[in-house]
Order: sequence, then structure tokens, then C-alpha cells
Amino acid sequence: METRGVHHIGIAVADIDEGVTTYGLLLGGVVEHRELVPDQGVEAATVIVGGSRLELLAPTGDDTPVGRFIASRGPGIHHIAYEVDDVAAALGELTANGAELVDTVPRRGLFGLQVAFVHPDAVHGVLTEVVSVVREA
Amino acid sequence: METRGVHHIGIAVADIDEGVTTYGLLLGGVVEHRELVPDQGVEAATVIVGGSRLELLAPTGDDTPVGRFIASRGPGIHHIAYEVDDVAAALGELTANGAELVDTVPRRGLFGLQVAFVHPDAVHGVLTEVVSVVREA
Repeated sequence: METRGVHHIGIAVADIDEGVTTYGLLLGGVVEHRELVPDQGVEAATVIVGGSRLELLAPTGDDTPVGRFIASRGPGIHHIAYEVDDVAAALGELTANGAELVDTVPRRGLFGLQVAFVHPDAVHGVLTEVVSVVREA
Repeated sequence: METRGVHHIGIAVADIDEGVTTYGLLLGGVVEHRELVPDQGVEAATVIVGGSRLELLAPTGDDTPVGRFIASRGPGIHHIAYEVDDVAAALGELTANGAELVDTVPRRGLFGLQVAFVHPDAVHGVLTEVVSVVREA
């Protein structure tokens, strides 16, 4: 699969404001986008740190994917997202190489990105996302 | 603290060869450096994926830092490293901003890099490394 490299690193935080503040104070991070997505159970902010992008994810409640992640493992690094030109083509190649997928077709992710997740079991425990920055209308 | 952005993402894997193979097959990753460091209890390989760098870390035994990480959490994302020009200066700024450090002075890390780790409690559960690519003689 061809990728342009890491698009962002997803990080689960208990509170989005505290996360943004910490990354600003310690690492000079600057907020790029911020979005509340109730149907995905997250409040998210992308933070640019020296040209790299972090995606901070705070749960809107305990019974959400990020809420359950934090309950079981604590806050911390959640996933790695790689940028590709074509998510559907990437999924085809991943499947051809035997990778188990979470999303078998591209879906709308945070910030209007087209995304799909690969199962962590396929990548030695790393929840892996493929992202295309071609935003839907 | 000024950073050039993410230098690498550290990933704990059970077996370095399997890790390298998976990242090559699924994501087109190409090995940059590889090193066995018995006194740190790791076999490490940096893998370039589309211009981004992953640092795969396999333990040389169960009673090693990476071995204990895998025993308690399973394989997966281990840390984020940010590139800085001067590790000592970065540590000074981090301390001034109240961050608890693992390494209060720079030390020699993998691949001859000058490194220091920030305590995960200071960064919402994320083990955070600062790295300078100025290699020691």
C-alpha cells in the first residue's frame, strides 16, 4: 500500500481542553481544527506540533469507544493514521495482503476526512487508520 | 519548547523480524537502521513509511522495559519522540513548565541519538521522548 506517511497520531485524553492546554504549553502545539461529534462519542481537536499532527480525542461519556479505551487502559496513544490517496484502493491492497479490517468500506471520519480502520490484530496491536484528505462535499 | 515535529513513533513488537515484515508488506515500510542493544534489553529497527519513521522495539527478554510493557499491555504503540535541536535546553523548558521528567539529563539513546524521556503523567499518559539527531562521536 502506498502512503504519504503519518497523517496524525490519535491520542485519547480525558478532557479536550486539558489536552489542548498541555500540548500547547509543553510542546508549542497549535490547534488546527476542533469538532464535537456526538454520534461518534468524541470531542476532537487536531493540534499541530512542529509540523506534525496529533488528534486529541476526548470521550463524551463513559459508554463510548474512547471512553471504554480510557476505562480499560487509561489515557494515551490510541491509533496511527496514514495518509493515502484512495482509501478504497488501500483497503483492497490491505485485504489482498491478509489484513483484517474494521471498516471494509471507506466512511466519513472526523473533520470530513474519508477514513477506514484496520484491525489492531493485523498490525501487532496497533490500531491503524488510513485517511484520505479528499473531503466530501 | 520548540520542536521540528515527530521524529518517530515507538512501537513495541514481540519479534523484530515479524514487525519489519508486517510494516513492509502492509504499509511499504523500508528499514532505515537496525540495532541490537543488549544493555537496554531491546532489538530495534527504524522503518520509514511514506516519509514518516516508526521505531520498532522488540524485547530481548521478559524482564526488560519493553518486555514488561508487552506483558502488561500487549504489543502496541509505546511512545512518541519529538525532534529538538538541543535536548538539554528542551528539558529545561519542560521542567520550567512543570513537566515531570524520566531523564533529567540527556543520554545516549538508540542509533546514537541524544535523547531524554518525559514522564507519561506529564503528558496525559503518553510516554514522550525528545530527540536530537546530533549524533555523538
